[in-house]
Amino acid sequence: VTDAAATVGDCSERELIARIRQGLPAAPHWLLVGIGDDAAVAEPERNRAEVLTVDALVEGVHFDRAFVPPAAIGHRALAVNLSDLAAMGAAPRLALLSMALPAALPLDDFDGIISGFTALARQHSVHVAGGNLTRSPGPLMLDVTVMGTVKRRQALTRSGARAGDDLYVSGSLGSAAAGLAGLRERRATNVEPRTTNLAQSFLYPEPRLALGVHLSRNRAASACMDLSDGLVDGLRQIAEASGVGMTVDTTALPIAPEARAFFAARGLDAVTHALTAGDDYELLFTVKPRTYRRLTEAARRGGVRLTRIGRCTTEGGVVLQGAAASVLDAGSLPRGFTHFR
Amino acid sequence: VTDAAATVGDCSERELIARIRQGLPAAPHWLLVGIGDDAAVAEPERNRAEVLTVDALVEGVHFDRAFVPPAAIGHRALAVNLSDLAAMGAAPRLALLSMALPAALPLDDFDGIISGFTALARQHSVHVAGGNLTRSPGPLMLDVTVMGTVKRRQALTRSGARAGDDLYVSGSLGSAAAGLAGLRERRATNVEPRTTNLAQSFLYPEPRLALGVHLSRNRAASACMDLSDGLVDGLRQIAEASGVGMTVDTTALPIAPEARAFFAARGLDAVTHALTAGDDYELLFTVKPRTYRRLTEAARRGGVRLTRIGRCTTEGGVVLQGAAASVLDAGSLPRGFTHFR
Repeated sequence: VTDAAATVGDCSERELIARIRQGLPAAPHWLLVGIGDDAAVAEPERNRAEVLTVDALVEGVHFDRAFVPPAAIGHRALAVNLSDLAAMGAAPRLALLSMALPAALPLDDFDGIISGFTALARQHSVHVAGGNLTRSPGPLMLDVTVMGTVKRRQALTRSGARAGDDLYVSGSLGSAAAGLAGLRERRATNVEPRTTNLAQSFLYPEPRLALGVHLSRNRAASACMDLSDGLVDGLRQIAEASGVGMTVDTTALPIAPEARAFFAARGLDAVTHALTAGDDYELLFTVKPRTYRRLTEAARRGGVRLTRIGRCTTEGGVVLQGAAASVLDAGSLPRGFTHFR
Repeated sequence: VTDAAATVGDCSERELIARIRQGLPAAPHWLLVGIGDDAAVAEPERNRAEVLTVDALVEGVHFDRAFVPPAAIGHRALAVNLSDLAAMGAAPRLALLSMALPAALPLDDFDGIISGFTALARQHSVHVAGGNLTRSPGPLMLDVTVMGTVKRRQALTRSGARAGDDLYVSGSLGSAAAGLAGLRERRATNVEPRTTNLAQSFLYPEPRLALGVHLSRNRAASACMDLSDGLVDGLRQIAEASGVGMTVDTTALPIAPEARAFFAARGLDAVTHALTAGDDYELLFTVKPRTYRRLTEAARRGGVRLTRIGRCTTEGGVVLQGAAASVLDAGSLPRGFTHFR
């Protein structure tokens, strides 16, 4: 099918699978059976544990096709999963791509989604080993499973933080939220979307795989997770799983000047957004003070800035300190964030 | 939440995850990290390759909540994946359950789906190692990933059939199609659905895991796949992947007397349905005549009847012989089945 107005409804499942396979590199030697059989068969990596995660992107919940281009949909569907592997300190190996497709989806958009997905896969040596295609009578959905590997004792969990450990985040916070808000504003006013840095942060998040692998490999981090649901959620999850308290200096949060300016121009508080907004896909992790030297090495190899934002304490609860603390109350936080003192 | 009228929209993701975990057995020793972290971590099985597959069930495409009870939705979502592992000769280990939930889904139905899923998981020692829950603005969707293991050289693919090999199917064909048709009829006429054997075949298919494992373990089968898309599709897939032709005796197809009677009462041809209907989840496989003795052992251990339905040939194409052949023409077959001579 080559008609410019063609939709996925014009294609058989077979033709769509052929379009996906076209863009894939040759199968690696460890992939014994790839796309086209009842299941994929992979040879395990020696002396490694398997790390598995699945995450879905649903149209109308996680993205709006009106302002998220097809390549970004494909990129994000894989990136959110790779971010989960990064948070475990795992190196990715393969992905399974399951899609539920509305019949009216333009074939060009299908190709765009696949190219965004496979471009990120190539960048991180992730092989597409299988998947599933089905019709959707409703929204477009992408459900992605990724498998990676980590040395057995080096998986970074949420439960390893101890009182006295320092709290760090990678990259910057709030940029994706500002990018999404900017895209929505332009959409609402029918202005052609601009490719700003902030919009790129939302559309094409970079999973912090190199950082995660190095934090795990040299045991620089005692606990780690990704910030898919925002910093406040992350702090609470690690605090709860590790049985520690936390004190966070909100004046130390790494907020990009562009994001700060975006929020300021709209009379919004950048710190509140940096604390609560999701979609940044940065890593939040804890570091024992005596292993600080290992951290600089992981930061250098991870290729991303790291910022110390607080410390784990013996007392329960997450305490926010600094100028922003005053603007936070239970009413201004999303549901579930009522454990603040 | 315990209100009888409660919906999943009344619950947080956390509460729903807690409801899932409630019904799960203790984690096996090889599951190093289970539900509740960024990803699951599993220790690989020694000397085994990993077998991975994903399959989705979408409301309005694969099931209708009007006549498919919640437990059957959960059962089928896992069964279709276990059937893919069976077709590879793999033994299942773990599953990831990803669900997109309409907010109005009754909480009782959610619990029913989970109990159908976990009951089948327990039966086959499959551990639920993780998953994802998200809101759906449209249909209910279940996307399940399963991972199993197989000895490296014993994976059953579609490409191992050779001319002279015999063609076998497990169990019986057409029962699920008759069961689905019966459920639809009753729904259309507002008659309370009855629990017939045929309806059970559709609602609670049994993945042929024991058979698959034994066909693989003693190398009884040269090629194998499951019949999720019907016998004709299966014949074509193995013929194409293996580069062989096939001659099938349509009078030999194992059609249950109940299904035969169901179709006859409606003036329909049972053989045509047995050839083209999906949803039976039986195994189609090829056997070298000299390894016939191994087959009887696999049949005994697999706990299911096996029927020889034809033979692989050197000439290309799938030839249907027998009384039913006359009723088949290109127009009566689903799209994609035009390769018949």
